[in-house]
Amino acid sequence: MKKKNKHNKKKTTPTSVPQGELLPSINSPADLRKLDVKQLPQLCDELRHDIIRELSVNPGHLASSLGVVELTVALHYVYDTPYDRIVWDVGHQAYGHKILTGRRDRFCTNRKLGGLRPFPFPTESEYDSFCCGHASNSISAALGMAVAAHLHDEKRHVVAVIGDGAMSGGLAFEGINNASTTPNDMLIILNDNNMSIDCSVGGMRKYLLKLTTNSTYNRWRYNVARKLSSWGILTDKRRKGLIRFNNSLKSLLSRQQNMFEGLDIRYFGPTYGHDVIELVRILRAIKDMKGPKMLHLHTVKGKGYAPAEEDATVWHAPGKFDEDTGQRLDTIPKKVCPPRFQDVFGETLLELAQQNPQIVGVTPAMPTGCSMNIMMKELPDRTFDVGIAEGHAVTFSGGMAKDGLLPFCNIYSSFMQRAYDNIIHDAAIMRLNLVLCLDRAGLVGEDGPTHHGAYDLAFLRPIPSLTIASPYDETELRKLMFTAQQKDMGTFVIRYPRGRGSVVDWQCPLEAVPVGKGRKLSEGKDIAILSLGPIGTEAAKAIQQLEGNRVAHYDMRFLKPIDEDILHEVGQHFRQVITLEDGVVSGGLGSAVLEFMSDHQYDCQVHRLGIPDEFIEHGTVAELRKICHIDADSILSTLHQLL
Amino acid sequence: MKKKNKHNKKKTTPTSVPQGELLPSINSPADLRKLDVKQLPQLCDELRHDIIRELSVNPGHLASSLGVVELTVALHYVYDTPYDRIVWDVGHQAYGHKILTGRRDRFCTNRKLGGLRPFPFPTESEYDSFCCGHASNSISAALGMAVAAHLHDEKRHVVAVIGDGAMSGGLAFEGINNASTTPNDMLIILNDNNMSIDCSVGGMRKYLLKLTTNSTYNRWRYNVARKLSSWGILTDKRRKGLIRFNNSLKSLLSRQQNMFEGLDIRYFGPTYGHDVIELVRILRAIKDMKGPKMLHLHTVKGKGYAPAEEDATVWHAPGKFDEDTGQRLDTIPKKVCPPRFQDVFGETLLELAQQNPQIVGVTPAMPTGCSMNIMMKELPDRTFDVGIAEGHAVTFSGGMAKDGLLPFCNIYSSFMQRAYDNIIHDAAIMRLNLVLCLDRAGLVGEDGPTHHGAYDLAFLRPIPSLTIASPYDETELRKLMFTAQQKDMGTFVIRYPRGRGSVVDWQCPLEAVPVGKGRKLSEGKDIAILSLGPIGTEAAKAIQQLEGNRVAHYDMRFLKPIDEDILHEVGQHFRQVITLEDGVVSGGLGSAVLEFMSDHQYDCQVHRLGIPDEFIEHGTVAELRKICHIDADSILSTLHQLL
Repeated sequence: MKKKNKHNKKKTTPTSVPQGELLPSINSPADLRKLDVKQLPQLCDELRHDIIRELSVNPGHLASSLGVVELTVALHYVYDTPYDRIVWDVGHQAYGHKILTGRRDRFCTNRKLGGLRPFPFPTESEYDSFCCGHASNSISAALGMAVAAHLHDEKRHVVAVIGDGAMSGGLAFEGINNASTTPNDMLIILNDNNMSIDCSVGGMRKYLLKLTTNSTYNRWRYNVARKLSSWGILTDKRRKGLIRFNNSLKSLLSRQQNMFEGLDIRYFGPTYGHDVIELVRILRAIKDMKGPKMLHLHTVKGKGYAPAEEDATVWHAPGKFDEDTGQRLDTIPKKVCPPRFQDVFGETLLELAQQNPQIVGVTPAMPTGCSMNIMMKELPDRTFDVGIAEGHAVTFSGGMAKDGLLPFCNIYSSFMQRAYDNIIHDAAIMRLNLVLCLDRAGLVGEDGPTHHGAYDLAFLRPIPSLTIASPYDETELRKLMFTAQQKDMGTFVIRYPRGRGSVVDWQCPLEAVPVGKGRKLSEGKDIAILSLGPIGTEAAKAIQQLEGNRVAHYDMRFLKPIDEDILHEVGQHFRQVITLEDGVVSGGLGSAVLEFMSDHQYDCQVHRLGIPDEFIEHGTVAELRKICHIDADSILSTLHQLL
Repeated sequence: MKKKNKHNKKKTTPTSVPQGELLPSINSPADLRKLDVKQLPQLCDELRHDIIRELSVNPGHLASSLGVVELTVALHYVYDTPYDRIVWDVGHQAYGHKILTGRRDRFCTNRKLGGLRPFPFPTESEYDSFCCGHASNSISAALGMAVAAHLHDEKRHVVAVIGDGAMSGGLAFEGINNASTTPNDMLIILNDNNMSIDCSVGGMRKYLLKLTTNSTYNRWRYNVARKLSSWGILTDKRRKGLIRFNNSLKSLLSRQQNMFEGLDIRYFGPTYGHDVIELVRILRAIKDMKGPKMLHLHTVKGKGYAPAEEDATVWHAPGKFDEDTGQRLDTIPKKVCPPRFQDVFGETLLELAQQNPQIVGVTPAMPTGCSMNIMMKELPDRTFDVGIAEGHAVTFSGGMAKDGLLPFCNIYSSFMQRAYDNIIHDAAIMRLNLVLCLDRAGLVGEDGPTHHGAYDLAFLRPIPSLTIASPYDETELRKLMFTAQQKDMGTFVIRYPRGRGSVVDWQCPLEAVPVGKGRKLSEGKDIAILSLGPIGTEAAKAIQQLEGNRVAHYDMRFLKPIDEDILHEVGQHFRQVITLEDGVVSGGLGSAVLEFMSDHQYDCQVHRLGIPDEFIEHGTVAELRKICHIDADSILSTLHQLL
């Protein structure tokens, strides 16, 4: 910590060029490389201010981007990008990278519909080496690029930048393990800020801290040598013996002092990550070394903006804020709007856990993101943040369930793709009693195609024995959670979206709903709409705008087992059926309804509304729903066409 | 290695009870625990012979089970199973465990329809703690059990037994990382035989070997002390200084000598794993120690059966063999039967790679299993065995594809469930040009529910931009592989089953097929069968038994993009349509056809044949197809019903 303060002062060293004059002239890394290395601290300042200013009015990921300003500048200064490859692990740290690589003028469009993408992506810029929405993939991807360079006999440098949080992901370990034996000259930069989105957990963190004790070893070694001298022991002959002794020791130690060296990856650091001139020096020094290398940096998330440094979790993605005061600006007054689904999950989980001693909570590094921090605060012994490790989160839950606990394991829908085999092999196949809560299901908005929870309904439905449910609103979420924790329910999935629901008074009594049973929301005679989840409120809005009781609306509640009574009723009484889901249109609710109607030879026309078979870009949820024709207006149009 | 030979002799120490008299009296571990510890070597001998004898006539996994005979006996001897939990990582090593836990009389039914399951499974025995078909899940599951015991205030011991191969899986790392911080008293036994199915790869292997050098360090430390004495340096005062010196050293070393200690897991070993008396001593010594522990054993795969010790890869699952001579008995003469799909893949890959310099091969620890060893032998620099690490295999392929190589990444269908997110996030979303070959797709037979490749069609179809194909026979596989490696094909999936196809003369010229186009195999007027993949041969057999041209048969070839011309033709001309796929009936081909017919308002009845929505147990492929009604006879019955 002392070290950081020392370097802090360095950073503000005045340069000869007036503030604010460097960045406008940087239209590409080639321009950056024309600067004198002494100008880089000022450039970092300007870049940092640019990011803060822009994000204060156009919300995005602040803290992580501030933490890598110096690293970003140093990388593009030392490496010949885009020929050389920089692979960012989780791209929300890459705002500086975007600004320096010709996207400064468009940075105000960041995360907006049609604007810059939320994360680097190859089709947006040749400087964006790989897709980087999900954590822990950088080492594997970079290794692939390094191997390609090797086979193509290219003198290309490849750098992966990975945070300590992402290092807990099994994919990162698989990548490192393979990198240590496959011929490559890749550089892995471990950006260690001691937290991922919340504080990073697991032995990896402790381990990284331990590495810093190497300097202690070095000091101690010299002290011993001095003492041996002072005892008169250290004659020349003996000194040589001791040098060999020390060499052996050091080689023994250096071969095994950390898992990266243990895995034959040459290790450098740890060093302070906010001294851009020193970073340039180090990168130049190790750039052309052969074989895989790791450079370990200590950085501060939110660096250079005091409020963000103080609470990097809150300032991970703070929304709009006043740049000068650090006041975050909540645009919607909390009292009158419905709660976020995640908060209803968090509050209800605590409530249930207080009643049912078998309930435990499991989250892979998302206690704040899924509001499991509410339970964590009250019942810390029964709440487990396992780090960025979705597969483990599910299998660990499986182990607990096997021995009688009832885990609620909460994972964002798109990250649950990481735990697909675990759901099948470590839960459903044994019909273990555990609850998988998929937050951020469906369209998530500005985080874009890597984060939309578009596939879960389709990839979960084929798994035998699963129960799959989605609540229409907040009170239904509570009821489904209560239902799922009843005796012998098997593996029970509850998926719900990002953001707020539709019910302000959400604190209904906890009561069960019958498994596999939906409900009729409105009567109608011409068309039946079968919806699953909160997207059903869009259908309800559309129906309200029609005269007469022409459209029946069923909230299916369960995708699996699906409510066959409702489907028989619909099959018998309707020729026109609309299915509506906030998920991809192939394989989910629409397909299930089609299959049922076909199997039972009902002669009705099923119109499947959902996310089309393409990667949906970023924008507000409302904008994206319109694009997918699953907003109230589009549904109304569809109804008008059919009526 | 020397150590092992020494212990080898120990193992055959004669005991007082005649050979063959102990095992029959062991009906449960409770009986085992009545034996004197000195009788255990004999019991191990008997157990080993039992396994060899049984497997010589009833094929199964031999080498890995022989490698853990002593460990299995020691574990059940020391631990109070089933109250204490043993979690096997990959259950094919658990034959000894089955025999000792009351299933000796039924062991002859192992892997047979209705018989013992191929892998331990909780519903089969209370001694089977968890599902263990896929590698690397034991630590996560055991940690869950240890936490459950802790929260329930139970004095239960939990032991995970994991091989060095499975340790390269990211899930194992996620588990260890979490185990090092979550309060638990779990014991992880690292069964290190230096190979998984083939030789295990990656830094982990090298790392494990390095650990063995600790004894060198110890020897060296004493030599130094002796020398210092001989130089007259080591006075008593100095000796104390040196003890402190050594203590500091040792503590430094022991804290950092391996990644397990680095992660705050207490580490013991490595030690020889075939001395059962010593194993009992060690397990007793560490059984009640608090906190997570790791015991590192060196074992020999195939131990005690010379042919298996010599070539453990071949003897992983050798088929029937002559117990005395070690002669493997191939029941089918090779010349007259069609080749295995995997061999056609392997030969064709080499052929293509020799023509197209961009082609590389990637396999996660299955070069023999998928026959990529053919290419590996000829083009070792372009073939990558990345260890048991399916997620990394796909992302690594993505990185190579991004920079212009054309990877063929071959992963068994059920293991591809581990790489689901990687397919979406690290390949399809960027439409990277790479070929994912899913071997063992569909019903695999005796390996049972964890290994059936039942879900791939359903979980892959919702992914935008993918091409998904399945060859009807061996020549079609060659054509699809040729097609997939053409320019700018995007992410291209080819799935094919375990076992042999239907064409003896498979070496057709390499030529492309049009993407998204199927073909008509037979004309017919009453019913159309749309099949995907080699399961279509069952339909062809059924059709051959019908008189007249009543059934048209289309080989769809592609699930995605699906051949709309064929579907329009079928929709226009047939009222009765049968879809046939070797995959789960929800979400795959049947659903795709239904969706098309519905979207285009064709009024035909679609009968979906495939794997039903349940976990299909083990048996021969023929038996299981019959159960699923997708064999020729069942299809014929369906046709008769419809005609």
